[in-house]
Amino acid sequence: MTGILGFVGLGLGKGDITLKGLDFLRKCSIIYFDTYTSLSSEINQAYLEELTGKTVKPVNREFLETEKRKEIYQRCLKGENVAIACIGNPFFATTHVALRIEAEKLGIKTEVFNSFSILDGILSATGLEPYKLGKIVTIVYPEPEYGYFPTTPYKVLRENLARGLHTIFLLDLKLEKKLAMTIPEAIELLTSMEKQFNEGVITEATIGIGLARVGTSTQVVKAGKLRKLEKMDFGEPPHTLIIPGTLDPIEREALKILGNIEDEAITEWLQRLKEKPKNT
Amino acid sequence: MTGILGFVGLGLGKGDITLKGLDFLRKCSIIYFDTYTSLSSEINQAYLEELTGKTVKPVNREFLETEKRKEIYQRCLKGENVAIACIGNPFFATTHVALRIEAEKLGIKTEVFNSFSILDGILSATGLEPYKLGKIVTIVYPEPEYGYFPTTPYKVLRENLARGLHTIFLLDLKLEKKLAMTIPEAIELLTSMEKQFNEGVITEATIGIGLARVGTSTQVVKAGKLRKLEKMDFGEPPHTLIIPGTLDPIEREALKILGNIEDEAITEWLQRLKEKPKNT
Repeated sequence: MTGILGFVGLGLGKGDITLKGLDFLRKCSIIYFDTYTSLSSEINQAYLEELTGKTVKPVNREFLETEKRKEIYQRCLKGENVAIACIGNPFFATTHVALRIEAEKLGIKTEVFNSFSILDGILSATGLEPYKLGKIVTIVYPEPEYGYFPTTPYKVLRENLARGLHTIFLLDLKLEKKLAMTIPEAIELLTSMEKQFNEGVITEATIGIGLARVGTSTQVVKAGKLRKLEKMDFGEPPHTLIIPGTLDPIEREALKILGNIEDEAITEWLQRLKEKPKNT
Repeated sequence: MTGILGFVGLGLGKGDITLKGLDFLRKCSIIYFDTYTSLSSEINQAYLEELTGKTVKPVNREFLETEKRKEIYQRCLKGENVAIACIGNPFFATTHVALRIEAEKLGIKTEVFNSFSILDGILSATGLEPYKLGKIVTIVYPEPEYGYFPTTPYKVLRENLARGLHTIFLLDLKLEKKLAMTIPEAIELLTSMEKQFNEGVITEATIGIGLARVGTSTQVVKAGKLRKLEKMDFGEPPHTLIIPGTLDPIEREALKILGNIEDEAITEWLQRLKEKPKNT
């Protein structure tokens, strides 16, 4: 009989693991800790070892996406229970879906121990309505030396705003290069996309919500005009940026109380959203 | 000094509470258990009492949205720690955002103990990409006696499909009337919207993913043409329906393995999506 390959979400910070997830980790011979698809200021190898009393092996992209990963399946096929533990929700990353499919095809039993993703953290931190979320998009680091400057975030924002929806920008992580994009960097990139397309999506009136270390004890939530957020220091990564669409009265109230934004900035932005953008 | 009002997510099933959330519940004088915004086949008052050893008071809409709710604030103002516990993510429901704002305005310290919502459960159950999620929408029970037949779900589906995005349909709960919409009922309602608008959004080729009791030990995931899903029995509520947009190779593979759909049905649907719908 094969062992179980469990995908265990760790949530966003210390103590966010579920009872069910912890119980499974304690039954494993080894825990593979994914250190590349996500980042938390509170969760690391030492924390996981202390929590579980088990051997924790940090694994990066090179391990999970090359032949090296087969070590995981071999253990399961020998009858061991093994966990792949990751920050946030285990299936937020395509890599984990691919690993699960591959394991299932090898006849290995897989189980999922859910935890919450940055999406839930954002809803809790901001009071924004889940029904108002538009397509999510990642702002990635351009690589000018290769002529690489992806502008999908601008297009997604424009489409979401046309439907009155909020846009969550996840910010690029290149953890192997010790890089994690900050909110000011993200705003600068969006501003340069506006210069390129000139469709009036990012203007003086555009407001945003800057979030740092969502779901941890040092979480920061600051809402305001982008040009104001651009000058702020949000501290350590990870950072997230949201540009809201239309706001219901409760969302508006929540942004004022939780994000400390002036009412006039909201009024100006909602007014701007009613005007037809250029070229559309 | 006031006590803390904690909003505690319970996840979707037994053992889904986080260590942090459980720790807080055990420090409370009383736990108000929201029984109306969501539903789980595994979480009830007895389970919460056993888990925490505390007094658990089930509260419905009538309590949380009328003057009766002030009992919660009065306890906090007297210095007690109090929890509002709910299935899923605590801020998936507007009611909880409103309660939090009100408490903050009264000078009560609020804290959030995140847990995961149906969104994370869906990602884990299906392997669908978070970046491909479109606007979420609820299919509500029509009330023909009042001429009430909301067709927003059809419009949202059409818009999401035009962008290649997946549509999550949350299905109406009227728990006080012991009603919870099933997947066959939801498909019937969508089909009757198609008859009304006749835009070719719901056709013989349309596929769906039917999910029952997501995140619990009796979770069911079945993918296939809507007309096939419409004849299936998914068992006890809650049910959820998804109509996928374009599918990446990994999403397609995941749907076959996790949802047991025939490859031909996927091919036909993806072909259909490339054709321009009528009237748009």
